[in-house]
Amino acid sequence: MNIETTDNMQNAFFAGVDWGTSRFRLWIMAADGAILGHDHSSEGMVYCAEAGFKPVLEAHLAKIGAPASLPVLICGMAGARQGWMEAPYLHTPTSLRDLFSSATVIADEQRDIRILPGLAQVIIDAPNVMRGEETLLLGAVDEAFSGVVCMPGTHCKWVSLEAGIVNRFQTFMTGELYSVMSQQSILVHAIEAGAIVTAGSAAFQSALRTALSKPSMVLSQLFSVRAAQLLDFEMKSAGAAHLSGLLIGAEVATMISAYGPQPIVTLVSAGPLCDLYAEALNQAGVTFKLIDAEKAARTGLLRAASQLWGKG
Amino acid sequence: MNIETTDNMQNAFFAGVDWGTSRFRLWIMAADGAILGHDHSSEGMVYCAEAGFKPVLEAHLAKIGAPASLPVLICGMAGARQGWMEAPYLHTPTSLRDLFSSATVIADEQRDIRILPGLAQVIIDAPNVMRGEETLLLGAVDEAFSGVVCMPGTHCKWVSLEAGIVNRFQTFMTGELYSVMSQQSILVHAIEAGAIVTAGSAAFQSALRTALSKPSMVLSQLFSVRAAQLLDFEMKSAGAAHLSGLLIGAEVATMISAYGPQPIVTLVSAGPLCDLYAEALNQAGVTFKLIDAEKAARTGLLRAASQLWGKG
Repeated sequence: MNIETTDNMQNAFFAGVDWGTSRFRLWIMAADGAILGHDHSSEGMVYCAEAGFKPVLEAHLAKIGAPASLPVLICGMAGARQGWMEAPYLHTPTSLRDLFSSATVIADEQRDIRILPGLAQVIIDAPNVMRGEETLLLGAVDEAFSGVVCMPGTHCKWVSLEAGIVNRFQTFMTGELYSVMSQQSILVHAIEAGAIVTAGSAAFQSALRTALSKPSMVLSQLFSVRAAQLLDFEMKSAGAAHLSGLLIGAEVATMISAYGPQPIVTLVSAGPLCDLYAEALNQAGVTFKLIDAEKAARTGLLRAASQLWGKG
Repeated sequence: MNIETTDNMQNAFFAGVDWGTSRFRLWIMAADGAILGHDHSSEGMVYCAEAGFKPVLEAHLAKIGAPASLPVLICGMAGARQGWMEAPYLHTPTSLRDLFSSATVIADEQRDIRILPGLAQVIIDAPNVMRGEETLLLGAVDEAFSGVVCMPGTHCKWVSLEAGIVNRFQTFMTGELYSVMSQQSILVHAIEAGAIVTAGSAAFQSALRTALSKPSMVLSQLFSVRAAQLLDFEMKSAGAAHLSGLLIGAEVATMISAYGPQPIVTLVSAGPLCDLYAEALNQAGVTFKLIDAEKAARTGLLRAASQLWGKG
């Protein structure tokens, strides 16, 4: 639990919450986006499905000293069917500006609490959904943005926009594939538990080159993480970077080829994962703009709140 | 435990054992390949690494009533570093006829016991190994075979031979990917535990079509198994077939394109998995010859034993 408060809560405009599967993040913002208090914890959707959403929210607000009637705007998995209340998906193609008007209102006597919708691609041969990333998108790109946005994570989203309209998106389960293959498959023998992969490591760079040059072969290359060690080409310490480079490289190469030779790319990410995707985009010869993921979430919540509650 | 014996052990030529990671299979064979007794159990390498290999082998031989000095020829993971005794890999390119002469002898006062080597592709950008499948190969194809052999399993092997020489091979972790993704990832919500996939099911056929037409997109299609259900395009009962069709379809399409438009394919497999690969090859428009995997193992062991001990 992490708490930070300031004395100027009289300027509080709203509380924004990014409520994910396993994470809770809350910011009290002024109308100009200044952060008056923030808090985060591991009380994500999974935890709250048992413990309740409202008590967790109010406990955090109380600790920060939020005004009693401060409105709250939520994005993420709290709006899933198994969350607090289902916030029906907006269907693509859609403008991001429609997010706020589709927010689902939680019946509450004390405050105005709303959950932003996720996006759904209701296409029978390309079904897809997102919850939370749509709010990052709203905060990451300008109203009239045309290009591609990459949002790495457990499930990495690639979104194609034209003049601010979300046309199509794709999901790569890259983070989860890395996790299950490194922990649950035969590759467990080839990967050190808890290994941190760095973008500059030789094994990551080499695996990126392999995957970028032949992305379609990635499924046949996963076993080479193990075989390379059995044949003494590689040490176990390189296994994590090898697997990560193959998966991220294949993902980036696949999407770059889908979007043509010089797509306009915005990378919305943070931390070590951001460095890995940035390196992959660099190796692929793609220039991109980098936006911090937490800042994008805050900005997206603020933009939607300003539309909803008329300030900012 | 499954035991079958016959009275004519006086014709016994040798005992052949396919000793895998989690399975033990033994056949007493006459010089003409007639099966005089057989037995199988789950006492694979993992079990025997604790319990010992020799006691397990002798217990099975005794139960079947094998002669006291009958020679034994073993293939598979018993020859791995963590197995009974390491049987060093034969390196590609190699003739399959070299398998027998490279067999590793187990020091034993009672019998002649040998373990066949696996194959290693000692190429720094395509490292690969197999143990067991080389013996299936020996049994599945003629001495001068040219073409491609597909051997589905936890790790599916695709082997390219020319005039009986193994040139290159590739490993797809398709079986294991299916297993970890369906049991350990978010897809667990989209797949019924223990579901049996049938080749004729609409979901399998549809997923095959998708993957065969765009194999390079497979990593972005895995999440659609979940999304299709969230958007009510598909029932949970179809999830297993959907995932299986994507993985097998992408594998088959990738390899067929690597080997050119009309490769000569031999499929070495059995059971439900065999039907799934056969359907994928059919949909890809590839004709193939089907060889039963267990028969291939027996035949391979017999061929090597005949070279070693001069009969047959």
